[in-house]
Amino acid sequence: MLKDKKNITIYDIAREAGVSASLVSRVISGNGSVSEKNRMKIQKLIDKYNFRPNAIARGLQKSRSRMIGFVLPHISTEYFSSTYYEFEKRASKAGYMTILCNGKSDPEVESKILRTLEETRVEAIIFMGGRADLIGVEDEYIDELRKVNKSIPCIVCSSRAEMFDCIGIHGDDYIGVNKLMAHLAQQGYKSLAILGGTDQSHPSKVKKQYFKEAAIRYGMEIRNEWIIGNSFNPEDGAEAMKQLLKQSHIPEVACCINDHVAVGAINVALDAGLVIPDDIAITGYDGVEASILSRPHITTVCPNYSEYGETIFQAMTALMEGREFEKLTLIEPEIIIRSSSLRYK
Amino acid sequence: MLKDKKNITIYDIAREAGVSASLVSRVISGNGSVSEKNRMKIQKLIDKYNFRPNAIARGLQKSRSRMIGFVLPHISTEYFSSTYYEFEKRASKAGYMTILCNGKSDPEVESKILRTLEETRVEAIIFMGGRADLIGVEDEYIDELRKVNKSIPCIVCSSRAEMFDCIGIHGDDYIGVNKLMAHLAQQGYKSLAILGGTDQSHPSKVKKQYFKEAAIRYGMEIRNEWIIGNSFNPEDGAEAMKQLLKQSHIPEVACCINDHVAVGAINVALDAGLVIPDDIAITGYDGVEASILSRPHITTVCPNYSEYGETIFQAMTALMEGREFEKLTLIEPEIIIRSSSLRYK
Repeated sequence: MLKDKKNITIYDIAREAGVSASLVSRVISGNGSVSEKNRMKIQKLIDKYNFRPNAIARGLQKSRSRMIGFVLPHISTEYFSSTYYEFEKRASKAGYMTILCNGKSDPEVESKILRTLEETRVEAIIFMGGRADLIGVEDEYIDELRKVNKSIPCIVCSSRAEMFDCIGIHGDDYIGVNKLMAHLAQQGYKSLAILGGTDQSHPSKVKKQYFKEAAIRYGMEIRNEWIIGNSFNPEDGAEAMKQLLKQSHIPEVACCINDHVAVGAINVALDAGLVIPDDIAITGYDGVEASILSRPHITTVCPNYSEYGETIFQAMTALMEGREFEKLTLIEPEIIIRSSSLRYK
Repeated sequence: MLKDKKNITIYDIAREAGVSASLVSRVISGNGSVSEKNRMKIQKLIDKYNFRPNAIARGLQKSRSRMIGFVLPHISTEYFSSTYYEFEKRASKAGYMTILCNGKSDPEVESKILRTLEETRVEAIIFMGGRADLIGVEDEYIDELRKVNKSIPCIVCSSRAEMFDCIGIHGDDYIGVNKLMAHLAQQGYKSLAILGGTDQSHPSKVKKQYFKEAAIRYGMEIRNEWIIGNSFNPEDGAEAMKQLLKQSHIPEVACCINDHVAVGAINVALDAGLVIPDDIAITGYDGVEASILSRPHITTVCPNYSEYGETIFQAMTALMEGREFEKLTLIEPEIIIRSSSLRYK
């Protein structure tokens, strides 16, 4: 009698098939000779119990490294460091050490990291940003992560994780943008700009689309010339606001792609003598420290970093134990309403 | 003939002594039997070449893990994440993977991390904050790091590294504070408060002392009741500024222990209707992003993060190769003068 489906090991399969564990391993890896009869018998059991290759690969390892790889673009970006912190806290408590690698949003640097993490025999890889967010990323980089995922469970922090055949976890930007737009509509704003973000970034493209759709629903105006920006930093926010203010007609709100862009936009608006939010309201996104340090404090959408870290940890544990996990988990963010957009309390 | 003193290995010692490498290892570790004659012969060579136990321990390892441990209090604190980033960039280029651990400034959490890093057989440990900065830290925690350093080279990012028998690297706060004070004197300020920091933090205590000494040199007044603060966050800066503003006489400058405290102090000063720097100038420390995001931009002292990371990397490489390195390297910081303290350009 086999154990609960979730706890199946390579030895259980071997026992039920009446063969050795190494024979099961040969069927899975496709290396070494196996009779057609045994191959079919074993494959049938693998299918029956939906036994995952990842768990199998792990079961074959002689010793566990207790090591996790965490790849992100740049640890000094608070969005990433906050997520990392919440994950690492849980992982270390469970006895795992986390190797943190800065991929610099460069697929080639990421490839080098992935190779080293494989050599290091990490037990799982968490992947944030970089190629996971890049629109038009080359197939070779997609295939590479897919291939790594076959021997090491990978969790991709992106709504596009499925593209890499990986489990995905991401903030729910549809809900985030709509909470923000509901607040702006409730405050009576009638028009908005979208500042910051790039065309190469999938999350930024998706967010902009959600803003446009919500604007139609709420009867708010977005002109094409009000969608300005090339990156994610305060300098881009400043430049975008400068361009916006040159126009003959400006919108009532500038929705920024993140809090850093919002800080840059605010500084330019204040320098131009505008009153926030009376002349123009400004909103951010991500709920990082900059949103509360700036004057005025910035209305923002805050991912639940604690829940984000917890979900990544749960997914990792499930995959390492060969259990199923949701293909894509979206974490509901909270809106934090502050004076940069608050007209009526 | 032995090689250059810096490149001595356990095998060189064995060759010159005419014994086996394992005998040399037994003398070093103190485990296993060695004749008194051999013991003295080997010890003499060890002393002659100033051969370091760390390098010896490494030489005995059968395989290298290419793994580095990096312990810091909290990765979301930009001072730490910037240093980590600059180090990791260099380490990964050289083929090392870095395990990043959040010690939460709790010596017990740090102890657990150190044990796991030892089990993981990391080749070096970088230690920032936590017990290294804590005044009155228990002897057991000092001894523990000393002991770890005997088998794994440890670099402590503190001016107190010698206490742990470790190589130390730290920002030169004497120069940092004095560059700041020279600027304030040049701008004609005559009195200052010191806001933020705790009595338990060694760097914060030392910085305050440097401020007081420099104030005497420049003939600037610091009253005891102007030294206020209990921590390192914006809330503490806000609370400290509130207490300062309650006093019948306030100083011309508030020197904050870091940029986050300065942001909190600025917000309270502005809310009280004060003009910065005309009514009160405010300065920060650490050169983090908050200093440029705030309005007005904050005058700050910026560690050279790139040089800091490079020096940690160089020290690590030297120790792993059994080479000598400076006991304590102080990194000279730069002052960034901004509108929060600039009266005359």
